[in-house]
Amino acid sequence: MSKFVYLFSEGNAKMRELLGGKGANLAEMTSIGLPVPQGFTVTTEACTKYYEDGRVLADEVVNQIYDALHKVEALYNKKFGDSNDPLLVSVRSGARASMPGMMDTILNLGLNDVSVEGLAKLTNNPRFAYDSYRRFIQMFADVVMEIDKANFEALLDARKEEKGVTLDTDLDANDLKELVAKFKVRYAELKGEPFPQDPNVQLLEAVKAVFRSWDNPRANVYRRLNNIPYEWGTAVNVQSMVFGNMGDDSGTGVAFSRNPATGEKELYGEYLFNAQGEDVVAGIRTPHPIAHLKEDNEALYEQFKQVSETLEKHYRDMQDMEFTIERGKLFMLQTRNGKRTAQAALKIAIDLVNEGLITKQEAVLMVEPKSLDALLHPGFDQKALKAAKPITKGLNASPGAACGQVVFTAERAKEIVAENKNAKLILVRLETSPEDIEGMVIAQGVLTARGGMTSHAAVVARGMGECCVAGAGEVLVNEEGKYFTVNGVKYNELDWISIDGSTGYVYGEKIPTVEAAVSGDFATLMQWADENRALKIRTNADNPRDAKVAVNFGAEGVGLCRTEHMFFEADRIMAVREMIVADNEADRRKALAKILPMQRKDFEEIYEVMGPRPVTIRYLDPPLHEFLPHTEDEIKELAKEMSISYESLKATVDSLHEFNPMLGHRGCRLSVTYPEIAEMQTRAVIEAAINVNAKGLNVKPEIMIPLVGDIKELKYVKEVVVKTAEEVMAEKGVQLAYKVGTMIEVPRAALTAEEIAKEAQFFSFGTNDLTQMTFGFSRDDAGKFLEEYYTRKVFENDPFAHVDQNGVGKLMKMAAEAGRKVRGNDIHLGICGEHGGDPASIEFCHAIGLDYVSCSPYRVPIARLAAAHANIKNPRK
Amino acid sequence: MSKFVYLFSEGNAKMRELLGGKGANLAEMTSIGLPVPQGFTVTTEACTKYYEDGRVLADEVVNQIYDALHKVEALYNKKFGDSNDPLLVSVRSGARASMPGMMDTILNLGLNDVSVEGLAKLTNNPRFAYDSYRRFIQMFADVVMEIDKANFEALLDARKEEKGVTLDTDLDANDLKELVAKFKVRYAELKGEPFPQDPNVQLLEAVKAVFRSWDNPRANVYRRLNNIPYEWGTAVNVQSMVFGNMGDDSGTGVAFSRNPATGEKELYGEYLFNAQGEDVVAGIRTPHPIAHLKEDNEALYEQFKQVSETLEKHYRDMQDMEFTIERGKLFMLQTRNGKRTAQAALKIAIDLVNEGLITKQEAVLMVEPKSLDALLHPGFDQKALKAAKPITKGLNASPGAACGQVVFTAERAKEIVAENKNAKLILVRLETSPEDIEGMVIAQGVLTARGGMTSHAAVVARGMGECCVAGAGEVLVNEEGKYFTVNGVKYNELDWISIDGSTGYVYGEKIPTVEAAVSGDFATLMQWADENRALKIRTNADNPRDAKVAVNFGAEGVGLCRTEHMFFEADRIMAVREMIVADNEADRRKALAKILPMQRKDFEEIYEVMGPRPVTIRYLDPPLHEFLPHTEDEIKELAKEMSISYESLKATVDSLHEFNPMLGHRGCRLSVTYPEIAEMQTRAVIEAAINVNAKGLNVKPEIMIPLVGDIKELKYVKEVVVKTAEEVMAEKGVQLAYKVGTMIEVPRAALTAEEIAKEAQFFSFGTNDLTQMTFGFSRDDAGKFLEEYYTRKVFENDPFAHVDQNGVGKLMKMAAEAGRKVRGNDIHLGICGEHGGDPASIEFCHAIGLDYVSCSPYRVPIARLAAAHANIKNPRK
Repeated sequence: MSKFVYLFSEGNAKMRELLGGKGANLAEMTSIGLPVPQGFTVTTEACTKYYEDGRVLADEVVNQIYDALHKVEALYNKKFGDSNDPLLVSVRSGARASMPGMMDTILNLGLNDVSVEGLAKLTNNPRFAYDSYRRFIQMFADVVMEIDKANFEALLDARKEEKGVTLDTDLDANDLKELVAKFKVRYAELKGEPFPQDPNVQLLEAVKAVFRSWDNPRANVYRRLNNIPYEWGTAVNVQSMVFGNMGDDSGTGVAFSRNPATGEKELYGEYLFNAQGEDVVAGIRTPHPIAHLKEDNEALYEQFKQVSETLEKHYRDMQDMEFTIERGKLFMLQTRNGKRTAQAALKIAIDLVNEGLITKQEAVLMVEPKSLDALLHPGFDQKALKAAKPITKGLNASPGAACGQVVFTAERAKEIVAENKNAKLILVRLETSPEDIEGMVIAQGVLTARGGMTSHAAVVARGMGECCVAGAGEVLVNEEGKYFTVNGVKYNELDWISIDGSTGYVYGEKIPTVEAAVSGDFATLMQWADENRALKIRTNADNPRDAKVAVNFGAEGVGLCRTEHMFFEADRIMAVREMIVADNEADRRKALAKILPMQRKDFEEIYEVMGPRPVTIRYLDPPLHEFLPHTEDEIKELAKEMSISYESLKATVDSLHEFNPMLGHRGCRLSVTYPEIAEMQTRAVIEAAINVNAKGLNVKPEIMIPLVGDIKELKYVKEVVVKTAEEVMAEKGVQLAYKVGTMIEVPRAALTAEEIAKEAQFFSFGTNDLTQMTFGFSRDDAGKFLEEYYTRKVFENDPFAHVDQNGVGKLMKMAAEAGRKVRGNDIHLGICGEHGGDPASIEFCHAIGLDYVSCSPYRVPIARLAAAHANIKNPRK
Repeated sequence: MSKFVYLFSEGNAKMRELLGGKGANLAEMTSIGLPVPQGFTVTTEACTKYYEDGRVLADEVVNQIYDALHKVEALYNKKFGDSNDPLLVSVRSGARASMPGMMDTILNLGLNDVSVEGLAKLTNNPRFAYDSYRRFIQMFADVVMEIDKANFEALLDARKEEKGVTLDTDLDANDLKELVAKFKVRYAELKGEPFPQDPNVQLLEAVKAVFRSWDNPRANVYRRLNNIPYEWGTAVNVQSMVFGNMGDDSGTGVAFSRNPATGEKELYGEYLFNAQGEDVVAGIRTPHPIAHLKEDNEALYEQFKQVSETLEKHYRDMQDMEFTIERGKLFMLQTRNGKRTAQAALKIAIDLVNEGLITKQEAVLMVEPKSLDALLHPGFDQKALKAAKPITKGLNASPGAACGQVVFTAERAKEIVAENKNAKLILVRLETSPEDIEGMVIAQGVLTARGGMTSHAAVVARGMGECCVAGAGEVLVNEEGKYFTVNGVKYNELDWISIDGSTGYVYGEKIPTVEAAVSGDFATLMQWADENRALKIRTNADNPRDAKVAVNFGAEGVGLCRTEHMFFEADRIMAVREMIVADNEADRRKALAKILPMQRKDFEEIYEVMGPRPVTIRYLDPPLHEFLPHTEDEIKELAKEMSISYESLKATVDSLHEFNPMLGHRGCRLSVTYPEIAEMQTRAVIEAAINVNAKGLNVKPEIMIPLVGDIKELKYVKEVVVKTAEEVMAEKGVQLAYKVGTMIEVPRAALTAEEIAKEAQFFSFGTNDLTQMTFGFSRDDAGKFLEEYYTRKVFENDPFAHVDQNGVGKLMKMAAEAGRKVRGNDIHLGICGEHGGDPASIEFCHAIGLDYVSCSPYRVPIARLAAAHANIKNPRK
């Protein structure tokens, strides 16, 4: 029989997969002698079993829960549902990976009509007991039975009105007792059965509710964003209650062992006396900074500080802790490695190395590559900032600067971005809740009126590396009216504002932002990363501006320069169109001759920025109709401009129409049918290289033929390229080293890579197209059903965000192996799809032995770090 | 050093790959002592080398040619270019596979100003000598130097006019001598250099011309149609000339050892006295039937008959022979296995078995599966035929009946079919030439005014299994005027006519055609095929009519029943549209409920035809927008019909628009997003099966989920199917055996087949989509560049016609192996793409161990035979 339930005293930190993060750490704290209210963990395997069994709690799991419960009762000499000294418990989720706020929690479980009296007696505080009971009924109804809590809040409000008071605290024990009765009546009305008095029933229902919550929509979205498999399941922690709301010698708080925003080595956090944990986290009351505890109760402060240091040394990382003080006694409710800003992560990692606690490699692994994104986001333009005046100030909850148009709901943000994907938005909320996650993903930044540094908005924003100003109390939000006011000034939906998550300032205007640079701690850690990686990092750049940004971020070459982007530029689109409408080779060549000098200049400029670093140039890829207009009016206008007849231009547009443009006449197919295009591009590539080399550079261009599916396609185009290159070199009397390779982006190219490698000097995996063709769905069209796929758990991950290792990855592996089989290490292998900037995909690229990844300029540092992670975890021989 | 040149006396029939078919057979005939004018063969490897060396004849090849030439000179004691007894040779192509008329031939090579006199002396016939010389100049100029022969014909005509005569034969030796002088002047004018007098130069130029002709456009088209690799190259045969035009004791002819139209055991062919081989093949003069030779010269006839029998026994197959009689002496110029009609092929194969010459397995291999197509084509409806009266009669050159609209050129045929792919056409030509091949492919049948049974039209039509009436002399064709007349009656382009290739009758009207049946020799051979095959043959059928045709042709099940075809039928398209515009599940279900009884009836009817044979039903596949109109007017009309607003219907149409419909919301993706569709289809499949089984049948439906790319998609849909099936069976109180499987048509399905096999009880390869996605081009769009690909030899084969074994086939093999790894022989493997009816693809399917192929009803016998071929060549363990 499997063991599905572990007492805290039976586990340890290594059992994270089985016990979840929270459970494993509660066990670990227990084992190192810290004060932890005892309890037990129902394992993740029990959760998996629950789902496998059709959402049923198996008898053996139930029995093990009862056994564990009895042991906890014995430990504290308390009884579940007892009229004198009742055992009360909290029931909390705890997955392998932290998913803050995504799943459900039930407190005070075990209260019923009998034990509430026991609690009253024990605490000598009937008001407290009945307040706890009415909170429990409400929470149980909400979380376990899915009854809207508004039903109960209405009763509470009615009672307050009756009594003519406004605060909950103005209600006395009798009021609350009456309310409990009313709550139970309402519960029975809505549920069709009475509120369960048996604590065992309460417990099993609560455990099931937590298991169920693993599958709620926001948990599914969070997992998808954070790449957490559905199969993992969650554990459930059942822990005896301690109360921070037993009076002024009680309290509760959360704290970090170092500052999670800056990384400073100082206790950092907040607490509230006479409160429950929820009150701190939800940001409803504004708590005191942890340093204040020293004044309130120095002994307790020192004890907590001691615990914090013990935990940090034990875990060799900064800790995020929850504690409760019950009648002057400290209890640890949770510890975990704390989430932190990227800036803090860098400082902490470097400090821990300096403190001798961890190695450089461990420091590199400690910084999540994705988190660097925050450091790479723009800050305000300093000159513009000087001219600007903040309208108010909140907490600097997540650093970085953002400028955007105001929206008040996630739904509205989604609508706006659906219309204009370049829209820049700031999500403004009274306080955020897990439902807002999608809106936060879309927005450039988040501004909340309420909540502290550990409020939901702050925690989540830091996790995403998104700018956040929290608890800006002067901001009065009117969500219905779609406006907010600050000191009487009204800001409407879509008005521009700017926020600075590093200072907390809010500006009622548009302030330009500027780019970040790699320096200080960031530069130190990147240097350690570079010392530890095997993959080279290149960038996708189509112009000198992007190339420059990338070089500043450490790019070691251009992995993808898309020449068609240049074709769209205003000064040459007309020549491109002339080429397309040409109905014979001579006219096509005439038009191409006009493009040549412009294209040559493009390359010269990029070569000059890249200096000695390799530049991979991809030849024209999109179908030609993309360069022509499609509506009647536009065609008429262009025909006039080009001095050709409407009918003739319309005929060209029609003849180029494709049913499936993605599967049409594009990529190398263009060069096979119009070799003169490849000739012109080769001339531009080679002439530009010879020109800049004459100035002392040593450029070695790499010519990349797209969409090859058969060796003969590559061979045909390569012959054109080589012939033209030889001609140019002969004309100039200069020899130039260059390479000709191919993208592997058609499944057949991967399948026949061994043949293709005979002609290709390098392979670059175009994983965007490869993903589309391997799955058989286009990115543009898949949006319509992929949402349903996520909802129905048919897919958990977006294959366009992370390389699909089972399918697409298998093709990549085959092709890489085939390439090396033919050319040994002489073949250069890279990736230039958008996956090249995704840490999980980079790890895969490392594992299959690619030489480099190429990503957008802003992703270069992330890729450098991810490549280091990959190599530290799985060193390349 | 490689041997690039073989004397006829050095080779044999087994050296076909090296010497080509013609060369190998000349050598073989030499070795068995038949009278063959001696010579030598330049190998196919020399051709390959010629192309590899950049279209240059290497010195070693040239030297070996000279060596061989000297040996032939010694053998006959003649000299190249001699003034007394000159050696003259023919230079002919000869590939591994016969490519009649596709490549070039030069006769009388070796003639120059000196040797022409030698020839005149030797034959004592100056007229003959100068006629040969002027023909040679013309042929050399045309074939080797690419000078239009019209240049010379104009001179010839001028001379005849000058002299006031109309026939070539009215010109005497002096006329011809003068013409030779004029020809040489014209040649020098056009070519800028004199006509080469050195026979060695003539020879090398001619050899190169033959090599070059391997790459001419019509050869490339022929190879593509016949699946002959470009890499093979052609050999060149240099053979000493014998002359059939040396007077009335000379002649030339072609003959078959059996009747190539019917298979009767009789010498069959034609000859002409005082003529060259060309005159017979080109169909310019009408030759005598071979039987007539007995009267002309009995001894010669008997000698030839003896040779024919010897060859047939030697090759154990019907022979197609060319011979020349020079001054009463018989020479064999060629033998090869003769092309024949399908009907003849069957009879010959069966007769040869009965004669004890070959085994049944050899007989099966002797019939080309594709050729059966001719027997499966419609014949005329006998009743209609009785009422019809032929307008004229030609030769019954290739059997079968055809009815279509008149066209006069291949170009026009292509235009018409581009506009209406269902157009039925009859190509009417004075005589056909290799340029007409594409038109012949498109047309239902060919009618020519000139030419015999061995004319180009007749040979090619038989090869294609296409109906042909040749040499219908009463048909007066006016190509320019786009009409023909028969006895004064005019038939214009696009008028309907009917032709019967089995009788030679031509009808000036539309006569309905009827289907063929498998009986007699056909049935016998099919039985032998069935005894020898491992693959089962199923059919693709969407309705009882097709299913019935297929069963009559021997189909053993339905491998693909496309349910969407049923959705388009007039009685249900409206309900389908209601389902699509429904914006909620309830309305969708309401519309589906209307479709259910109709779909159930569809299945019942098909089940009843198929009886105990398995029926594989594919669930709805196309994107929903295919069921809706797209133009404004149509949308308006439909909106009215459906009583909904135009705006609302337009919005639905717009929302369903896809950029790449092939990669869009279709296949199982529809069932994932709208499981109620799969529910309805399951209900129809299962209810129908239970209903017909109640009548005593034992139907076991196979439900096929399309476009699966991930195990979870299949799992999701399968759960819906199983749940619904269980419900239906519970309602009916009946248990029913059924299977659920998937198509493998997305590359990722093949790559992850091992996972998918856990849920799929069968795999059916959908090679149409698999080909599109593996190559990354859609069939609809690829047409635009594939033509260029063929021209530039980037592709030689249409991957939609023959499975691409290197790419698509690799995926199929992987998937088949993975499927068997998981389920052993319990997994059923089939193919239902159009490749299922292609013999080369069937051979591949056999090799990778599939259980069945499924093809269109008319391809079933072809598939049965191809499957037998595959298994005889490569027996399955």
